[in-house]
Amino acid sequence: MRNILIIGAGRSATSLIKYLLDKSEAEKLFITIGDISIQNAQKFTDGHPNGRGILLDVFNEVQRREAVQQNDLVISMLPARFHIEVARDCLKFGKHMVTASYISDEMQNLNKKVTTKGLVFMNEIGLDPGIDHMSAMHVIDRIRDKGGKMLLFESFTGGLVAPESDTNLWHYKFTWNPRNVVVAGQGGAAEFIQEGTYKYIPYHRLFRRTEFLDVEGYGRFEGYANRNSLKYKSIYGLEDVLTLYRGTLRRVGFSKAWNMFVQLGMTDDGYSIPDSEKLSYRDFINLFLPYSPTDSVELKMRHALKIDQDDLMWEKLLELDIFNPEKKIGIKEATPAKALQRILEDKWTLAPEDKDMIVMYHKFGYELDGEKKQIDSTMVIKGDDQTYTAMAKTVGLPVAIAALKILNEEITTPGVQLPIAKEVYEPILKELESYGITFNEKHVPYLGYNPEGVVG
Amino acid sequence: MRNILIIGAGRSATSLIKYLLDKSEAEKLFITIGDISIQNAQKFTDGHPNGRGILLDVFNEVQRREAVQQNDLVISMLPARFHIEVARDCLKFGKHMVTASYISDEMQNLNKKVTTKGLVFMNEIGLDPGIDHMSAMHVIDRIRDKGGKMLLFESFTGGLVAPESDTNLWHYKFTWNPRNVVVAGQGGAAEFIQEGTYKYIPYHRLFRRTEFLDVEGYGRFEGYANRNSLKYKSIYGLEDVLTLYRGTLRRVGFSKAWNMFVQLGMTDDGYSIPDSEKLSYRDFINLFLPYSPTDSVELKMRHALKIDQDDLMWEKLLELDIFNPEKKIGIKEATPAKALQRILEDKWTLAPEDKDMIVMYHKFGYELDGEKKQIDSTMVIKGDDQTYTAMAKTVGLPVAIAALKILNEEITTPGVQLPIAKEVYEPILKELESYGITFNEKHVPYLGYNPEGVVG
Repeated sequence: MRNILIIGAGRSATSLIKYLLDKSEAEKLFITIGDISIQNAQKFTDGHPNGRGILLDVFNEVQRREAVQQNDLVISMLPARFHIEVARDCLKFGKHMVTASYISDEMQNLNKKVTTKGLVFMNEIGLDPGIDHMSAMHVIDRIRDKGGKMLLFESFTGGLVAPESDTNLWHYKFTWNPRNVVVAGQGGAAEFIQEGTYKYIPYHRLFRRTEFLDVEGYGRFEGYANRNSLKYKSIYGLEDVLTLYRGTLRRVGFSKAWNMFVQLGMTDDGYSIPDSEKLSYRDFINLFLPYSPTDSVELKMRHALKIDQDDLMWEKLLELDIFNPEKKIGIKEATPAKALQRILEDKWTLAPEDKDMIVMYHKFGYELDGEKKQIDSTMVIKGDDQTYTAMAKTVGLPVAIAALKILNEEITTPGVQLPIAKEVYEPILKELESYGITFNEKHVPYLGYNPEGVVG
Repeated sequence: MRNILIIGAGRSATSLIKYLLDKSEAEKLFITIGDISIQNAQKFTDGHPNGRGILLDVFNEVQRREAVQQNDLVISMLPARFHIEVARDCLKFGKHMVTASYISDEMQNLNKKVTTKGLVFMNEIGLDPGIDHMSAMHVIDRIRDKGGKMLLFESFTGGLVAPESDTNLWHYKFTWNPRNVVVAGQGGAAEFIQEGTYKYIPYHRLFRRTEFLDVEGYGRFEGYANRNSLKYKSIYGLEDVLTLYRGTLRRVGFSKAWNMFVQLGMTDDGYSIPDSEKLSYRDFINLFLPYSPTDSVELKMRHALKIDQDDLMWEKLLELDIFNPEKKIGIKEATPAKALQRILEDKWTLAPEDKDMIVMYHKFGYELDGEKKQIDSTMVIKGDDQTYTAMAKTVGLPVAIAALKILNEEITTPGVQLPIAKEVYEPILKELESYGITFNEKHVPYLGYNPEGVVG
């Protein structure tokens, strides 16, 4: 028997656990799920002979070390900031490790010791980061192998609601951590490169500088820039690329409407509002509008945001019931972001029968034999239900596949890794296909921002 | 002889030093000026028998302690973050201390020990903070002494250019640290209270929510909100006040034009621009505008900011020569804020014959005998020249007067203080009058935001 420890049994762990339990007989695996809630840990194994749930408090060093020691490989599905203690234990006791999170500086610093011990610490192997890396490198390496030179790389991912569950004017529901959605884009200007020129967008303009993308069979989406596209230069070896842009996908119209909250300062997470629990939704909105003894909150809002009488943006606000004077925020010491999240959760929480959808869109511009070409590669994955969501599948399956391939010594390069090497991404992408996680590639005319080479 | 040490001989120390040297015979004072530049330290004493300049590196503990020990009182004119080491030495060696800076938490933590030793550490006794505290408490105490109840307190200060030197379309020149002007308002939402309701303005809206103020003989100004007005509740004992607002004054039109830079992200101080030294002004502007192979930076700018053909805002941009493709930023690793400052310094630096001007405007709303009343109190101070600027006079004279009154035991309450007690502000305001620093008080109708008591 080979023993795998999964730490953190959140909603995104379902497909991961199912994959490993399904393979446990054939592959001789025993899966231990450790969670701060024993109920949570046990419900996923559901009496399976090759699985068990245990109580595991990751801050309890004795408990954590005991669990790590008893296993051959550890998968941490904890929030990224909690990986490092687990990683140090894995190093100490000589265990492999897998995470779906960005490599932190602390994690990177373990690289030398991890390598020396011949261990594989595979990170960034979920959806984004994860499937994005693998599917991008798959195409980039192919272009390079043919002698092509990369000119443009743009990549967008969105966690959305499936069309059949898309029932509100925003075309959006929370399919992932709502907090991350509310504060998305904060913390600094978005940086990217267009046609060799650095470009910067401050947070308060981010949602007004989107671009449209069409996905066959799914219609039109819009993308807004992620904070840091530039680090992909070195990761993907795109030092000479003219255009480098990473973004987040939403349905058309979302960003312009979301910008209303950004403009008023309602997404700020930096200060607490006194007596926030007692504020009505209406009071909350009014914090961000000038005082008037006579004018309504509605008119002040229309005026502040220049919303015309016949603008659909207004209906989007009404749908959220933000002018309700009775409904209370009900959270003490709430920041504006937390209060806004509370209001949105009333309307944007998935109903039991709702399905989610993941959309990924890559553009690869390149020059081959003196000709400019472009490949657009898209992926759309829908959830089966609220357990096996698209998010759980796309995050969990690559993690699970990588874990098994490490145990089976199909992935062997030691060190703190991310899945950009052919030996890693090729077999994993191949296996993902059998789970319906596939990309649709199209050759399109090169669509850089200056295809004619005009000197501006 | 009583010995006074002044640390930091910057531009705002001129009036301070002159005051003390002028009084040195009569008051038996010897003034030592310590500065990291010996030339700087010596030029201000200019051979005066009761003054000398010395080299003093405030980070050199031995040098610093020796200087502190030889004096009876220390005035620190250093940037606020450097006060604390000097303060600890003053405590150790039993010396009084005076600064024009806000009391830091570290400074406040010394209060108990400073009080036990019977020392006076007087802070916040420059212009803003300083004259604002004293002149506000002067009126607030008078209203309370008559049995009045405070309803409203608004206070605005601006460091501007005198009308005779006001020669550009922005009606603004740098009369103080340019960096502080470029990053003004950043770091969090502005918080204040209007008619009992908390109000918040995010940075990117700050310069579009100004209010107008008229000063007799000087015309119209506009004020934008400072970050934290709320702390004045407890400092001034205004816990029950309905309206509390502090702001910064500019000439009308400045804020709306400044907002162009804010909107584009050009005031961001959070990241460095690669190869910034080689960028032309035009390149710099273009970093914040979408790529186009054909459209000019000018048209992209007009479009991004919706500037009509006949809008004066455009002339303000042209006046700064920001579209110049030849002039270089010339600063390595510049943040957008630093690059913008560089561009502005070309046009906004005071000419040798220019004079500066300080404007302060307080509004005090109160209820007395069932009647709502208001006092508006204004101060306008012009600089004599580029040495004895309005800024140097209004910052330095209160510091100097306080220092002498501490030595003469007219100000005696020990501890870490700010000038809000009658025993402190009354004699200092009185003496400031003889230097032309006076307030013009007017009784006006109560102008709260809801004078009729409408229930909104």
